[in-house]
Amino acid sequence: MPKVIDHDERRREIVEVAKQIILKGGFEAATMRSIATEAGFANGALKHYFPGKDSIVAATFESILAEMEAAAYAPVSDDAGERLRHFLRTPLPRTEEEIASGRVVLALWEHAMSNDELADLYRGFLDRWRIAFDRYLTAAKDAGAIAVEPPYDVLIDEYTSVVIGAAVVNLMHPDGSRVAAYDRYLDGFLARLG
Amino acid sequence: MPKVIDHDERRREIVEVAKQIILKGGFEAATMRSIATEAGFANGALKHYFPGKDSIVAATFESILAEMEAAAYAPVSDDAGERLRHFLRTPLPRTEEEIASGRVVLALWEHAMSNDELADLYRGFLDRWRIAFDRYLTAAKDAGAIAVEPPYDVLIDEYTSVVIGAAVVNLMHPDGSRVAAYDRYLDGFLARLG
Repeated sequence: MPKVIDHDERRREIVEVAKQIILKGGFEAATMRSIATEAGFANGALKHYFPGKDSIVAATFESILAEMEAAAYAPVSDDAGERLRHFLRTPLPRTEEEIASGRVVLALWEHAMSNDELADLYRGFLDRWRIAFDRYLTAAKDAGAIAVEPPYDVLIDEYTSVVIGAAVVNLMHPDGSRVAAYDRYLDGFLARLG
Repeated sequence: MPKVIDHDERRREIVEVAKQIILKGGFEAATMRSIATEAGFANGALKHYFPGKDSIVAATFESILAEMEAAAYAPVSDDAGERLRHFLRTPLPRTEEEIASGRVVLALWEHAMSNDELADLYRGFLDRWRIAFDRYLTAAKDAGAIAVEPPYDVLIDEYTSVVIGAAVVNLMHPDGSRVAAYDRYLDGFLARLG
């Protein structure tokens, strides 16, 4: 009986390989050839799953954003204040591995500058992020867990930008020496929410 | 009489050309060949000024950081509150050109991940930035222009990260549709300083 090949599963494997290559060697290290070699494919066989590097990169970006969303939106608690704190804490890198994974996002931002599809993916992510953020704040306010009144746009812009900046600053300090600074900032942000 | 060649001036010209190439085509577009062609040099002649692409990139990064520092630290006023506001406003992009120039910094962050010299340049910049920021806040406090008491570390971490995030978010919205959001954030930040 021939082995049944799960097409989607293979695509996920290829994306995972691409992610690891970018993580270790940066964006330039991820070529069709290096991805095929790492994934154990003959060079041409990769094309059965992705027509070219751009489509692998787009799938990698989507996968990373989906992981970030799944982690941040996880239903960790019935308590609206707890869920808000989890949402805020999740995107701030803590471990060396989390810091290093910022490198993939940085490489993808860079690539998005010359690739509209990637830029659209990221804008879509930011839009969903803002909507979710507003929902978490509103739920926490309704539950009496925070005191600050809507609209929340300025707070959302601030926090979202800090998260992006934290990824970059921590990458420049891969020893984790800036991690505690962002915890102090988060404490202050929560205190301002009241 | 032979033409006197100003070595430093030539180096500055080459750096300016490299900056423009990265701005338009991203980091991959800046090769020794493309820089030489744009600068009007024979291919080998570039080596009289820079041994390779890495040294041009490092000089370009230094030049951009020096420009940012010169702009932010400009002695615009004798008033400590005015100087603080200028320091805060300067790194937030406003025009399409300022937004686009974030692309060079993004490309250089990416490159710094695999190049210790660049990472050191950026860490040095961030260190000087923090010291200057603290000095501006302290001077404004001494002059009674702000009310918030030191230490200012958490505020400095927040604002510095927002500036980095603003560069990325604005690059994703090159039409400038997110510019006003950062002005609102800056107003709120100043209000918090009291």
